[in-house]
Amino acid sequence: MDVMRCCRIYRAVRHHLRAPVLQSIIATMAEVFRQFDEDSVIIVGVGLIGGSIAAAIRQRHPGCRVTGVGRSEQRLAAAQEAGLLNDWATAVTASMLQGRSVVVVCLPVNMIAAQVRAIAPLASTDVLITDAGSVKAAICDRVMLDPKSAPLFVGAHPIAGGETGGFENAEADLFDGRVCVVTPPDHGELDGRKIHRTEEFWSGIGCGVTRMTPREHDRILALTSHLPHVMAAVTTSVVGTENLPLTGSGFRDATRIAAGSPALWKEILAGNREQVIAAVQSAEQMLADFRTALTEHNDPRIEELLSDAAVCRTSLES
Amino acid sequence: MDVMRCCRIYRAVRHHLRAPVLQSIIATMAEVFRQFDEDSVIIVGVGLIGGSIAAAIRQRHPGCRVTGVGRSEQRLAAAQEAGLLNDWATAVTASMLQGRSVVVVCLPVNMIAAQVRAIAPLASTDVLITDAGSVKAAICDRVMLDPKSAPLFVGAHPIAGGETGGFENAEADLFDGRVCVVTPPDHGELDGRKIHRTEEFWSGIGCGVTRMTPREHDRILALTSHLPHVMAAVTTSVVGTENLPLTGSGFRDATRIAAGSPALWKEILAGNREQVIAAVQSAEQMLADFRTALTEHNDPRIEELLSDAAVCRTSLES
Repeated sequence: MDVMRCCRIYRAVRHHLRAPVLQSIIATMAEVFRQFDEDSVIIVGVGLIGGSIAAAIRQRHPGCRVTGVGRSEQRLAAAQEAGLLNDWATAVTASMLQGRSVVVVCLPVNMIAAQVRAIAPLASTDVLITDAGSVKAAICDRVMLDPKSAPLFVGAHPIAGGETGGFENAEADLFDGRVCVVTPPDHGELDGRKIHRTEEFWSGIGCGVTRMTPREHDRILALTSHLPHVMAAVTTSVVGTENLPLTGSGFRDATRIAAGSPALWKEILAGNREQVIAAVQSAEQMLADFRTALTEHNDPRIEELLSDAAVCRTSLES
Repeated sequence: MDVMRCCRIYRAVRHHLRAPVLQSIIATMAEVFRQFDEDSVIIVGVGLIGGSIAAAIRQRHPGCRVTGVGRSEQRLAAAQEAGLLNDWATAVTASMLQGRSVVVVCLPVNMIAAQVRAIAPLASTDVLITDAGSVKAAICDRVMLDPKSAPLFVGAHPIAGGETGGFENAEADLFDGRVCVVTPPDHGELDGRKIHRTEEFWSGIGCGVTRMTPREHDRILALTSHLPHVMAAVTTSVVGTENLPLTGSGFRDATRIAAGSPALWKEILAGNREQVIAAVQSAEQMLADFRTALTEHNDPRIEELLSDAAVCRTSLES
């Protein structure tokens, strides 16, 4: 059944259906006709994110070939054994990039741009390169400086993850309903179809996709992700090991992310330096507001500060 | 089977048992012979904490009578209907305090001391009054000023709870394995048996009990509970409602406590003012350390700050 025939049937019956049924049909059609036309996906870096992308493609698009690329043969063989990969190799080669293929670079943020620039010379113009890095301007800027990479690359950041890395924790539904920010460059002459294809790739593994510039992404993620990590680290260190026995579930929730890899997070913070500094300054200012209200016995102001936060947080699911 | 007979059996067999079996027997005996000699427990304030104390007593000590005291007849009747209470009333009366009874005041921290002082004149010397407030010095100091209350009251703080109040969310195992800090006054001539009885009460509903002065409690809880609440509120407000769509599970975990009641938390922060100010200052200092390391491109220092926190947080279960 092709799209046109399906639409004809829909037009013929829609006047006889109630609104909820119509909505359900429209949602189903959107799902069915969502494009995912890739012949193969090459995942560079098969950890939690790369492994979950592999799992999602294997489950949703079994006709697409998934190749893992990494340093450790042993780890890659184990990921294949776990059913995540059709194939693997320790380097990207031109022979992998035949037909319509997407390369997804899932490395630490400081290694992504160099990897993209190393892959681009091997690729035909039909290849799309994207990434999953949680900072964007530093990566996109470096890629755009390379004339071979620039027309092939569209940066992306799926906002999903966990404290525990490794493909062993990969899940096919890790991206379900999560937002993926797609960040075409502010300027340059990238083919609009490449951007659209990038959005189809990420929505094809379950993401809701939104588009913004690399800098806008970095400004917002400094607030929504990088600052919370710094705040959790500060809260943890101020408490200190000796006081952990008197912590409760609130502390555990609030500081869970502080257990994340220091090496990876150093690169993220340093890779978004100016925006993180601005976010930290905002937090320092608001902490000073709390302290001043406490010092001045201005209890209504304390309640106001708490209430602003509670209203904001309550508007989000728990 | 009484304690002495059980101990004789234990002594006769222990040389034939391996260490893990012995440990298991000792733990079981400790549980069996834990004292809980209260005829009745009066819970003033039947919310999440008061309701969970009621549920724990009803489950573990069915011979003990549980009376709820609160403002709303409708709510109290509903709590009785839910099986939490044997009985309820809208005020504590002398007739409730017959025999060996414990009054547990589970009100907002700013209402506890006045409530204790109102109950004490009705009580015989055999009555124990304790509380569940999350600040201690302000409460204990005010109670100790009252000659009738001072010999009856031993403050306590079970470190357990949740963002969602109300007896509907009460759980009989809310206190299982959680720490309860028991805070006899720094000075004064409180009967040591009252302190011991308080510890038995809280361990009798599942808590691990630790003893410290009210001020020591407040200094540590400012770090482990009150500061994390301020940090979560700051993180939430700096992000702001407009950026919530780009938050992930890390932000949700880190800020969950910020949804707690602003009115209750204002009283907690104001009730532990000096210690909270000191804790906020420590956090401001460490945020400034992060900002300086970022500004000076001192990336090894960023990683060191993150690593200190990660080591500390990893030593706690997730």
